[in-house]
Amino acid sequence: MSATTEATADPTGGGDLVVTERTRLRRMREKGSHRRADLDAVLAAGFVCHLGVPVDGTTMVVPTGYGVDGDHLYLHGSVASRSLVQAPDTTVCVTVTHVDGLVLARSVFEHGVNYRCAMVYGIPRIVTDPEEKLRGLRALTEQSSPGQWEYVRQPSRKELAATSVLALDLTEASVKTRSGPPDDGDSEDAALGLWAGVLPVVTTFGEPVTDPVLPEDLAPPAHVASRAGRVLGE
Amino acid sequence: MSATTEATADPTGGGDLVVTERTRLRRMREKGSHRRADLDAVLAAGFVCHLGVPVDGTTMVVPTGYGVDGDHLYLHGSVASRSLVQAPDTTVCVTVTHVDGLVLARSVFEHGVNYRCAMVYGIPRIVTDPEEKLRGLRALTEQSSPGQWEYVRQPSRKELAATSVLALDLTEASVKTRSGPPDDGDSEDAALGLWAGVLPVVTTFGEPVTDPVLPEDLAPPAHVASRAGRVLGE
Repeated sequence: MSATTEATADPTGGGDLVVTERTRLRRMREKGSHRRADLDAVLAAGFVCHLGVPVDGTTMVVPTGYGVDGDHLYLHGSVASRSLVQAPDTTVCVTVTHVDGLVLARSVFEHGVNYRCAMVYGIPRIVTDPEEKLRGLRALTEQSSPGQWEYVRQPSRKELAATSVLALDLTEASVKTRSGPPDDGDSEDAALGLWAGVLPVVTTFGEPVTDPVLPEDLAPPAHVASRAGRVLGE
Repeated sequence: MSATTEATADPTGGGDLVVTERTRLRRMREKGSHRRADLDAVLAAGFVCHLGVPVDGTTMVVPTGYGVDGDHLYLHGSVASRSLVQAPDTTVCVTVTHVDGLVLARSVFEHGVNYRCAMVYGIPRIVTDPEEKLRGLRALTEQSSPGQWEYVRQPSRKELAATSVLALDLTEASVKTRSGPPDDGDSEDAALGLWAGVLPVVTTFGEPVTDPVLPEDLAPPAHVASRAGRVLGE
């Protein structure tokens, strides 16, 4: 099958997200999905995305926090204030990537990365409804730091006014993942007798570091302390 | 000082990278740099970037491997074949981000992330010189897996022909970092008596997982085995 033929087929055999020309999955050696549950799983495992926006005719890729609530992904407007607030009708791409390991094959050509990646496209909507704005900020906070929204001081009216919240529909998206050993275990290169496999990459939370202006014996709250040593997203 | 005034100043007080409208540092609470050494340090600590390219009028943000050799950042063309090979005169943005910790403040508003981020802009050049192509592929391989280039089978003529390598000059770039405790230790919120600090995020290599088709007792080579337990980029 030629690459061109493959590009016109939906390799997931279906799914419940909208498949468009830009989210159709083209690279066949990796697993693709247009299922909402797969999208949710990738998004739930992280809290930093890379937001791509055209700014003054050039693409800009900015790392920024995100939060998920229901069918929306929320972003802080301040991060993208140069672009999104000025040009609210611009389609953006939000990419969330988790690197899981280095795929060490018998040839340079077969090397790769095990990963989980979600790409969401859409025109962000500036949230004006005060209740939704609060919900978006809560989602952003809880995405990275579950329990903090209730623990710390919530936004004042002044702070709310100074913050833009943007909502992106979770409808046009694709998920790509790769896992498992290298692909050349049954190739001619297997005869080289080289070691091959995966070097896992693991992202974990460390021990909380108390703000030096606080008493040293002030213990972090349970919702923070309990994350030490835990793998991100687990 | 207003945000507008700040935006026209170079907060680094100099540096040896070209400062343009799109790499000028705007956000003041974080530390910015246009120094090549700072750029090199952020790039050296990782191996996956987020490449932003306009594709059919929409920005696309794709995670992909990169390598650094001298004054160039190298990318695999295959990843971006839909865009870069078809439109070689397009300016792209390559962003490399390391997340170092969650900044847990006394108020939602002051929450943030400790991170190191490099953004490189430029028009990628398709590498045609065979020697530079090999150098680019070597840089890509060694960036993620030092020692693998010499250990495994290097690219055949056929594989080289099937791979596009793109070079991006390391000239127009900016670096942003945040580190340290939250900023509200001397604010009114300090009186709330809440715990505040940083929850570190650490990315490490795990124990190598041997390809299941290989004998279990085949030990990984030293350049792989020695990375287990080590922090990425250290």
